[in-house]
Amino acid sequence: MGISNQVVFSCRKVVQSTREAIVTLQKRNPAIQPLLAILQAGEDDSMLEINKKMAVKIGLNITQICLAKECNEDDIVEELLKLNDDPKVHGIYLHLPRGSITSRVLNTLKPEKDIEGISDLNMGRLIRGDLSKGFVPPLASAVLDLLENHDAPLEGKTVLLVGGEGPLQLAVQCLIERSGMVTLKTTYVKIIVLSNELMYKDAFGLSSKSGLESLTAAYRTQNVVRSCSRWLKGQEYRPWHLRSLKLQPLTPVPSDLEISRAQIPKPVDQLAEEIGLLPEELEAYGRSKAKVRLSVLERLQSQPNGKYILVAGITPTPLGEGKSTVTVGLVQALSAHLKLNSFACLRQPSQGPTFGVKGGAAGGGYAQVIPMEEFNLHLTGDIHAITAANNLVAAAIDARMLHEATQSDKALFNRLVPSVNGVRKFSPIQISRLQRLGIRKTDPASLTPEEINAFVRLDLDPSKITWQRVVDTNDRFLRKITVGQASSEKGQIRETGFDIAVASEIMAILALADSLEDMKNRLARMVVGTSCSGQPITAEDLGVSGALAVLMKDAIKPTLMQTLEGTPVFVHAGPFANIAHGNSSVLADKLALKLVGQDGFVVTEAGFGADIGMEKFFNIKCRASGLRPSVVVLVATVRALKMHGGGPNVSAGAPLPREYTDENLSLVAGGCCSNLKKQIQIAHLFGVPVVVAVNVFKTDTQAEIDLVCQIAKDCGASDALPCNHWAQGGRGSSELAQAVKEAASKPSDFQFLYNTEMPIVEKIRTIAQRVYGADDIELSPEAKSKTDYYHQQGYGSLPICMAKTHLSLSHMPDKKGAPTGFVLPIRDVRASIGAGFIYPLVGTMSTMPGLPTRPCFYDIDLDPVTEEITGLF
Amino acid sequence: MGISNQVVFSCRKVVQSTREAIVTLQKRNPAIQPLLAILQAGEDDSMLEINKKMAVKIGLNITQICLAKECNEDDIVEELLKLNDDPKVHGIYLHLPRGSITSRVLNTLKPEKDIEGISDLNMGRLIRGDLSKGFVPPLASAVLDLLENHDAPLEGKTVLLVGGEGPLQLAVQCLIERSGMVTLKTTYVKIIVLSNELMYKDAFGLSSKSGLESLTAAYRTQNVVRSCSRWLKGQEYRPWHLRSLKLQPLTPVPSDLEISRAQIPKPVDQLAEEIGLLPEELEAYGRSKAKVRLSVLERLQSQPNGKYILVAGITPTPLGEGKSTVTVGLVQALSAHLKLNSFACLRQPSQGPTFGVKGGAAGGGYAQVIPMEEFNLHLTGDIHAITAANNLVAAAIDARMLHEATQSDKALFNRLVPSVNGVRKFSPIQISRLQRLGIRKTDPASLTPEEINAFVRLDLDPSKITWQRVVDTNDRFLRKITVGQASSEKGQIRETGFDIAVASEIMAILALADSLEDMKNRLARMVVGTSCSGQPITAEDLGVSGALAVLMKDAIKPTLMQTLEGTPVFVHAGPFANIAHGNSSVLADKLALKLVGQDGFVVTEAGFGADIGMEKFFNIKCRASGLRPSVVVLVATVRALKMHGGGPNVSAGAPLPREYTDENLSLVAGGCCSNLKKQIQIAHLFGVPVVVAVNVFKTDTQAEIDLVCQIAKDCGASDALPCNHWAQGGRGSSELAQAVKEAASKPSDFQFLYNTEMPIVEKIRTIAQRVYGADDIELSPEAKSKTDYYHQQGYGSLPICMAKTHLSLSHMPDKKGAPTGFVLPIRDVRASIGAGFIYPLVGTMSTMPGLPTRPCFYDIDLDPVTEEITGLF
Repeated sequence: MGISNQVVFSCRKVVQSTREAIVTLQKRNPAIQPLLAILQAGEDDSMLEINKKMAVKIGLNITQICLAKECNEDDIVEELLKLNDDPKVHGIYLHLPRGSITSRVLNTLKPEKDIEGISDLNMGRLIRGDLSKGFVPPLASAVLDLLENHDAPLEGKTVLLVGGEGPLQLAVQCLIERSGMVTLKTTYVKIIVLSNELMYKDAFGLSSKSGLESLTAAYRTQNVVRSCSRWLKGQEYRPWHLRSLKLQPLTPVPSDLEISRAQIPKPVDQLAEEIGLLPEELEAYGRSKAKVRLSVLERLQSQPNGKYILVAGITPTPLGEGKSTVTVGLVQALSAHLKLNSFACLRQPSQGPTFGVKGGAAGGGYAQVIPMEEFNLHLTGDIHAITAANNLVAAAIDARMLHEATQSDKALFNRLVPSVNGVRKFSPIQISRLQRLGIRKTDPASLTPEEINAFVRLDLDPSKITWQRVVDTNDRFLRKITVGQASSEKGQIRETGFDIAVASEIMAILALADSLEDMKNRLARMVVGTSCSGQPITAEDLGVSGALAVLMKDAIKPTLMQTLEGTPVFVHAGPFANIAHGNSSVLADKLALKLVGQDGFVVTEAGFGADIGMEKFFNIKCRASGLRPSVVVLVATVRALKMHGGGPNVSAGAPLPREYTDENLSLVAGGCCSNLKKQIQIAHLFGVPVVVAVNVFKTDTQAEIDLVCQIAKDCGASDALPCNHWAQGGRGSSELAQAVKEAASKPSDFQFLYNTEMPIVEKIRTIAQRVYGADDIELSPEAKSKTDYYHQQGYGSLPICMAKTHLSLSHMPDKKGAPTGFVLPIRDVRASIGAGFIYPLVGTMSTMPGLPTRPCFYDIDLDPVTEEITGLF
Repeated sequence: MGISNQVVFSCRKVVQSTREAIVTLQKRNPAIQPLLAILQAGEDDSMLEINKKMAVKIGLNITQICLAKECNEDDIVEELLKLNDDPKVHGIYLHLPRGSITSRVLNTLKPEKDIEGISDLNMGRLIRGDLSKGFVPPLASAVLDLLENHDAPLEGKTVLLVGGEGPLQLAVQCLIERSGMVTLKTTYVKIIVLSNELMYKDAFGLSSKSGLESLTAAYRTQNVVRSCSRWLKGQEYRPWHLRSLKLQPLTPVPSDLEISRAQIPKPVDQLAEEIGLLPEELEAYGRSKAKVRLSVLERLQSQPNGKYILVAGITPTPLGEGKSTVTVGLVQALSAHLKLNSFACLRQPSQGPTFGVKGGAAGGGYAQVIPMEEFNLHLTGDIHAITAANNLVAAAIDARMLHEATQSDKALFNRLVPSVNGVRKFSPIQISRLQRLGIRKTDPASLTPEEINAFVRLDLDPSKITWQRVVDTNDRFLRKITVGQASSEKGQIRETGFDIAVASEIMAILALADSLEDMKNRLARMVVGTSCSGQPITAEDLGVSGALAVLMKDAIKPTLMQTLEGTPVFVHAGPFANIAHGNSSVLADKLALKLVGQDGFVVTEAGFGADIGMEKFFNIKCRASGLRPSVVVLVATVRALKMHGGGPNVSAGAPLPREYTDENLSLVAGGCCSNLKKQIQIAHLFGVPVVVAVNVFKTDTQAEIDLVCQIAKDCGASDALPCNHWAQGGRGSSELAQAVKEAASKPSDFQFLYNTEMPIVEKIRTIAQRVYGADDIELSPEAKSKTDYYHQQGYGSLPICMAKTHLSLSHMPDKKGAPTGFVLPIRDVRASIGAGFIYPLVGTMSTMPGLPTRPCFYDIDLDPVTEEITGLF
């Protein structure tokens, strides 16, 4: 076959296979369209024509960026950066004067789009023989093709490359040698490589310039399609390549801060890459925290979810029984030891207790989130955003009441709907209010005086404002205050108060929202009080809900951190566990479930005992998210079980009585057969299997631990095991992880406890009787009338969020075990309409902690030279 | 010369030159010590011995990481990452089995430390002939050396490379060809390259294996020293390679938000690299903001500062005259058009006004900081950190008063100094308090009852607490409140109030601190109130100052952003301009002055008119920082000048009277000869040259502008020019930039207005008379007694921070022009001891703005799909 025919033949083959590759791509993703970007200086020349024709023939899209002939390096770099960043561009062809392709230009070109294979990185890959990532220069492919398909016997011949650019020539040579077709002998075939073109002499016969250019163009398009295919693959779910961090636990276990500081966290962008996040899905906040964009959910929408594991606890002592450490230890075991993808989803702690009494919430011992000081302090600012949003609503309420009290309808209307450059119109948020009022008008001039009155006057009843201000500080003096006492507020004083920031309804919304739009709608629906005529007044009525969404636009993205063993953690939202539902966010769980993949595990934690946290997790959070749990891990401690078995009081600050440090099997048995048994039964009400995790303390005896495990299994737990994550890290929880894995592989049969269409009172009664073990409930007159009011306002079908003590299954904190024979008193009933639940109050709930005489902050300090924090827990 | 001799000779030469290179390095930086890290599997072998001997001989340090022989890829990668991150390691030698050097290992190795030149990137650089960044493989250098120094004539000979690894062979070949010594001819010298060793045959005579290994080892050390030298160079000041973003201004000028959104900011890490920041000095917060570490100051300490330019203004109308836009326009002109390094240093705006009335503070039109919505919202959380720190102090105050009121000395002491595991000791912060009380004891048991009483009782006088709480919201109802009304606070009610967060003393401290340590000391010194016996009580007395430093540890790092034209901006601190000094941070200015370099410019802005903002800039900020300004840019508008010339009232919301939209030269002249002239004179009091910038509005006529420029020059301004940055971006301010450059090149003769050792009253009088033009001052009795108190407490030598209206040179906002013949009344005198100034109150200052009837937030919204913000200004 002559050289011309050979070129034609090869061309046809490449065109054919590239077209087929496009078809395959479009089967995977019908929307995909490979796009070649040509960055050129000056007009099209004949070579560009050939390339464009070829691209069209094969079915590529083309975009041309034409710079002026005399463009400078900056111009080229600027365009190149845009093309680099454009996800629709799969390959960039630099059709520029040779002198313009400087080191800087080459280094700017994204190697993934360098279809010419001319960047240093791609050239190095080619030389090393790694073709999985770079690109073979199209001209080199063309030469190789011609050699391969040369019909004269090449064996025993030598190739001599003459002229041309150094790197390109080397690439060709390298490929030829690697192909093994010819070796370096004395008789040789001459191939003359010249700048950007190639001529065949001698062995190939006459040169065929344009033919070769066509073949090169065909290989160029092939590289574009290859790049497109790699991009598409990059968009798909990727198996993890998690590099776990080694732990060498010390005995005795050092302080949490010392352990945290001794481990160097992986850079968060590295962690993100390991778990299959794309760089553009990450927003770093320093070195070890990053927000993850919600677009991941869309990218991985066809990816099946992993298993969903809830960590709950038995009724705790006031000291807490270690649910967070179990959660962290469990994912350390799953990811770093069982090599199963797993994610922990944790709540962001309030900064108040960090400086007050409680200390951190990042886990503890060798099961922690690191760096623990960043976890416990500002994190990525979500709670600050909530504070800002919450307090903007509060300021809007009081300012509005002042303005309504001091202005006529007309003045209010003129100010609320001002004439701007002679035009008066309603803002969209005002039109929403008009619609709620039943006024279907859009022209301000057309409103009747009555309509204006209804529109401008929210007419809030000062005694019925439910919205409180918040701070993220334990500031007890703000529990009850009087505001508006300056003369500028003209006597509009009012009693109100501050809550701790995490008690804001906005926090509960952040935790339950499942998209930006859903969050925005919930923020708009929040009821801040009641008008004098009894109508609920919302954030949207105040005109503030758009601004709230703007303030919260970053907070909605979960924060990625890592455990001590380098496994991923989402920290997101931390609503109060009594007046709200006390669970981390729906969005973090959803993102994590996609990222871990079908065989992976997402471990999330419910606040308080299972009777509260788990019940709310199922009935509120799972209802909002549509997610279904596979297993409940129920955390128990010998200490708490002894208390439920009749042991003496346990209280913070006081030394533990001897019953708790010496072996006492009968107390343990008593607690197992009452509280542990009941909590297992509660989980079974929802049809979810239970694995009991005994969080081992150093004073526990083997006999005590064995007893707990035995009784737990007798009570129906799928399994029960001790775990030692606090002292040993993930290795200490491997058996638990194995048990969770097995339990999760069995079919579960999840069901809600109640239908939301039941009357409010019936829903409350169901929870009280079936979960708490109460005989009945008793509503105060106020609770009764509130219930009626909510029903009448159309809020009757919201789920119930009980505000009850976590220290007993009953409403009486000192009744341990599994109390019976009591009637649950419902003191009051309130509603968080934006968050979407009704919360009955069983007793008084403090929503603002105080500082003790010697708060934690006495020991907290910063070394100004090393920048190290000391004294944090 | 035989081959052995040749090797010995070459070796000696390389050893010699490398030793010299180390000497040169150590002259540049005596602390530097080149370090070779060897990552090996198993014991040392003979080759390692040779390398180690050579390194020692040359004077290198060596660190060896010995992995087990059967180590896996993860182990190697983990160690490699540590070596990559260790700034003391300059070269990494992977002495591993060939099979262990996988693609992943090669891709992990930092190219800057890849002294073997085996990573893909370095191989590509070598092939392309760019040796400025990569490394020549030591073996290749050795071969080339032998060829170069071969004493048989090589010209006309051909080299044939046989065997060896593909990439390494290609590298050798590439270098040989490039050297031009030999060409590819038929008679050739044989060089046989085998894995990691090389033998000479034929032309070179007998092989000399170990000799060659020595030479290779010598070249390896040479590469380490080269890497060390590059690292050192990287640590030094680097000229900028700023890529400016192109602007194509539209007419009419679109909204600020539209302009901001139409420009795609450079990724902040790219900007940082362009201005010579190292990657480890940056902490990204998303894509377009990053905090910059203060370690830059240490790295560049020997670098001379750039020129320091202050933008101040004439007395403004209530609408503001555009100092921020002038500042931004000026740096756009300097950097993007005059190609001079420049930095703008701006204040972070409060979020309150963003949602209230004022709108953004990112500049405007085509002179803006982008993305403007991020500038105006949470930024990097500094104001939130200030809020948290401020309110922790407040909570500590009230909680402490409650605890003191309800506990005996003994109970307080037992709680404040508890026994932990049987040991009682004071925390460091408590020892500081003891020392202030004159108690030189460290054993709690040794305190007398009187000492215990003094230690445990701060005994705060409730009526003399000066510390207020803050929120970053315009919440007027918090101006005056009563706290502690819940029964849990046992009747300890107290009247107090909230300020807007930027009015917190902690904000002023952030702005004036010049290191982490300085900030910490200032936080500790803050006086929160007075004890019943008249002693000042500090944050350190409350035990809270360490925690405050921890809360503020990230806030102290300035935030890097960019202008519309891609030039760098620091946003950092924004203290209130009336009760505080109203200037951005000392640290941002200092960092910027180092970064722009000797010939660069840092443009910083002072709040309010020059009589306030500039005076405080000089007397407070420059005193704290030790920095000296080169030029003052005085911003004037035709509008404000007309007002000072006798034009009618200008007020926000009302349409402008015709005098302001039609030409009126006599009003302009009147304003120039009064206010403008006086403000120029004030700058001259400090010995600083003035360039007047006329911020052009579209209604200004050429005659009006010319008149302003003429009179300004007549009054002593170095120059006076119109600027059109709002409509044209940096191009519209090029003439101003040129004039500033010229003025800055002249010697200036800065001096303070007063000596701080003068009595407080004298300092106030000096400012009133010389700056404001008052006849005298008159102190109220309260002001008088406070002055005496501060003097007696040792605060007498602090500088003065006047709290005066910005709408007039006098204390009467309606007296425009340059009023004379008035006595300045001093209503009260207060002190910010941590920030370090005394602030006399001239009239009443509101520290909490309110919301209007229709706040900005009515128009602000978020598109939940595109995530775009609408309605922001």
